[in-house]
Amino acid sequence: MNRRPELQDILAAAERVEPHIHKTPIHTCRSIDRLAEAQLFFKCENFQKVGAFKFRGACNAVFSLSESEARRGVATHSSGNHAAAIALAARRRGIPAHIVMPVNAPKVKQDAVAGYGGKITWCEPTVESREQTVARVIEQTGATFIHPYNDERVIAGQGTVALELFDQVSELEVVIAPVGGGGLVSGVAIVAASLSRSTRILGAEPREADDACRSLQAGRIMPAVEPHRTLADGLRTSLGPLTFGIIQELVNEIITVSEESIVQAMRTIWERMKIIVEPSAAVVLAAMMRGQLDLQGKRIGLILSGGNVDLEALPWC
Amino acid sequence: MNRRPELQDILAAAERVEPHIHKTPIHTCRSIDRLAEAQLFFKCENFQKVGAFKFRGACNAVFSLSESEARRGVATHSSGNHAAAIALAARRRGIPAHIVMPVNAPKVKQDAVAGYGGKITWCEPTVESREQTVARVIEQTGATFIHPYNDERVIAGQGTVALELFDQVSELEVVIAPVGGGGLVSGVAIVAASLSRSTRILGAEPREADDACRSLQAGRIMPAVEPHRTLADGLRTSLGPLTFGIIQELVNEIITVSEESIVQAMRTIWERMKIIVEPSAAVVLAAMMRGQLDLQGKRIGLILSGGNVDLEALPWC
Repeated sequence: MNRRPELQDILAAAERVEPHIHKTPIHTCRSIDRLAEAQLFFKCENFQKVGAFKFRGACNAVFSLSESEARRGVATHSSGNHAAAIALAARRRGIPAHIVMPVNAPKVKQDAVAGYGGKITWCEPTVESREQTVARVIEQTGATFIHPYNDERVIAGQGTVALELFDQVSELEVVIAPVGGGGLVSGVAIVAASLSRSTRILGAEPREADDACRSLQAGRIMPAVEPHRTLADGLRTSLGPLTFGIIQELVNEIITVSEESIVQAMRTIWERMKIIVEPSAAVVLAAMMRGQLDLQGKRIGLILSGGNVDLEALPWC
Repeated sequence: MNRRPELQDILAAAERVEPHIHKTPIHTCRSIDRLAEAQLFFKCENFQKVGAFKFRGACNAVFSLSESEARRGVATHSSGNHAAAIALAARRRGIPAHIVMPVNAPKVKQDAVAGYGGKITWCEPTVESREQTVARVIEQTGATFIHPYNDERVIAGQGTVALELFDQVSELEVVIAPVGGGGLVSGVAIVAASLSRSTRILGAEPREADDACRSLQAGRIMPAVEPHRTLADGLRTSLGPLTFGIIQELVNEIITVSEESIVQAMRTIWERMKIIVEPSAAVVLAAMMRGQLDLQGKRIGLILSGGNVDLEALPWC
């Protein structure tokens, strides 16, 4: 069932989700441009509904279902933003959403899921526990499983962010997207491969969860070793077979960044741009700030993937 | 010298500052609309240069000076945003800026002034000390004094925010602006009186610095009693003769709000809109949330005046 989406799937997704999502703005910031020695265009998915790009993929998946599938609801596991996104997308379609969440998910994300009417089932923060738990939920309800990233409908939905970005900003030489499970960067890379072939697509991930980088080096999917060690809670997951294949073929490079540089980048964005981004979003600026010479002076799109932060537990306090 | 600005002064200011300022966007937020039971249009001056609307007035004043005046520089006293704004405007004109700041000004605002090349002279956090100090600086340098709000050039500059707002959003029934010294609300009220006569202009101020409300009741300027008791450090100042007269004639009402409601509103904006606003900006949403029935269901413009916050001292931490 799960095949690699093509541009036409992403165009179809754009039409499907258009009534439900925000077309998010591009922000620029001259003082950060000076620091980065480049011309940066920030795609503000932190302003997306549920506070993250995940709503695009969730919406596309939920609204792709047939009537009879939809009636039985949807189910997923997620550390956070995908969960909230599925809950809201399901509510908009008027169907149940069963969400399996690890007990250590950030409170702000738990509250969001509950607030959108998602039915939460708790699991241990391990891959095994969450997969077993979601399997049980699906058996009990007949709900359709929507994987957070290794799903063609989800990847096609995430790709819509790149359709907007290339429409909003011309002549981007580079686009940098965060890499967790790889759904976002895969969707972006597919769009670029058709519509903006000269644009280099880079992924950014925490050094503490550098599974994408190591997977590309190894030529097979490598799990993250101790992903809980990164603050960037949206990027703790490993690639899936579908996203791995797309990234292998279409993403030019994965840049890994330190925790310190993520906190620094997040704070820079908050202070200079006056917008709230989560650590998982800040990795793209952290990657930019590593100072690779081949990025300097260029027009660069940075996808700020989300803005859901526990305001009582800021990393610099 | 100091006369009440008219619409034509504000139009001239708009032309003068246009090369220097950001035209700031309007944000909307359905979840806050639901809480407020109204249709809210947030004018995001937190995205303005120096992080506050103050750059408009400062820019208009600095670029209004003759060449010979400009050469001797400008001077002002300010608890923060006006100081940074004058420093940056002066730097853009290539002239010195002498800034008198109270020793208890927030660190983030001190750093901003220094970062823009302003020359800081410290004073005690009293009206007397800062006026004496600035007088001494002017005597020594021949700089032109630019008052933070009781200045026709400054008020005209602040009014440009309303030109944009009425252009960006049609049929606003109410606009709410924060009131500190009254420069912003005065400029907005002058524009509305000419271009949008049916729009009611409301001011919002902290109950702990309710001098504008009491001044209107008394029919003369009343000082703030213990203004340091409000978190909204941009709103601790009292009205000036010029702003008092304009507010008396053109502002429909001043709404006062509790400290608790300011913190709550600020947090709501951060969490729901993913943007950073300072307490002085949050007063407009706090005023809205007081739940006055005559605001419900209406199209309301809220001026988010600034976003300069010390990220290490958040009021809810």
